[in-house]
Amino acid sequence: MTEVIRRVRPGDEIEIAAMVRELAEFEKALDECTVTETQLHTALFAEKPVAYGHIVEIDGEVAATAVWFLNFSTWDGVAGIYLEDLYVRPAFRRRGLARKLLATLAAECVENGYSRLTWAVLNWNVNAIALYDAVGGKPQTEWTTYRVSGPELTALAGEQA
Amino acid sequence: MTEVIRRVRPGDEIEIAAMVRELAEFEKALDECTVTETQLHTALFAEKPVAYGHIVEIDGEVAATAVWFLNFSTWDGVAGIYLEDLYVRPAFRRRGLARKLLATLAAECVENGYSRLTWAVLNWNVNAIALYDAVGGKPQTEWTTYRVSGPELTALAGEQA
Repeated sequence: MTEVIRRVRPGDEIEIAAMVRELAEFEKALDECTVTETQLHTALFAEKPVAYGHIVEIDGEVAATAVWFLNFSTWDGVAGIYLEDLYVRPAFRRRGLARKLLATLAAECVENGYSRLTWAVLNWNVNAIALYDAVGGKPQTEWTTYRVSGPELTALAGEQA
Repeated sequence: MTEVIRRVRPGDEIEIAAMVRELAEFEKALDECTVTETQLHTALFAEKPVAYGHIVEIDGEVAATAVWFLNFSTWDGVAGIYLEDLYVRPAFRRRGLARKLLATLAAECVENGYSRLTWAVLNWNVNAIALYDAVGGKPQTEWTTYRVSGPELTALAGEQA
């Protein structure tokens, strides 16, 4: 068995789009998932990419992916990695690929001087949470994330003089 | 009284660093706040900035700031704004500046086709939460944010083959 963890390259957007949809289905949000291969290609491979990705291949088959972007902390003044999607296809689970992808991103942080690796997990995803606790992840329970989108975003934008 | 909301420009990093520290003190985390003016200058004004900012000036005095960066959603395939810091100096509160900054960022989203404006709030910051509810913000209570940093990040990175 050959196992390869590598950065994404053009063409991978097809398998990544498929995995993003598989993950959205698992997260019971397939109706919110409208992403296209073209959008992913642009995000990942534009001259100024807004997202980055890793792929795991097992014997040439795409088994898992991590899609991430850089954030910035005004507290320590440096960038960090925000892991937007972490997904392992069912046939390739229980062999530690998620942990390996997290370790790969942690190494990316250390090599580049980024101070932290951040992500969000659905509260009912107990298997994922067990892994996240095991790798030293700390739940940021003192903070609540807020989001404005859709008609509320348009209405708020309209308040601008 | 003249009130100006504008994008940051080189030199603003001095007032922004001061306001970031004022906010960290309010958030009872001044010890975690080590950011320097040089770091902020690099983040905001490099050829490829990792952060962006707005300033509010009242009669030429710096009254408030918003520091933000772009994120990416694999669900809808487009960028969004993550508001890292929103701060209004005490002497300039209760005149709607925080709401105006939120509206400015919402307009930035709409103009650029970004689908959402996201941020995090400390659970005890009830005044801020009242505003966030009032502008149509939705608390993402079904998700928990996780973070790995410090020695745990180094240890995780060390697992990489």
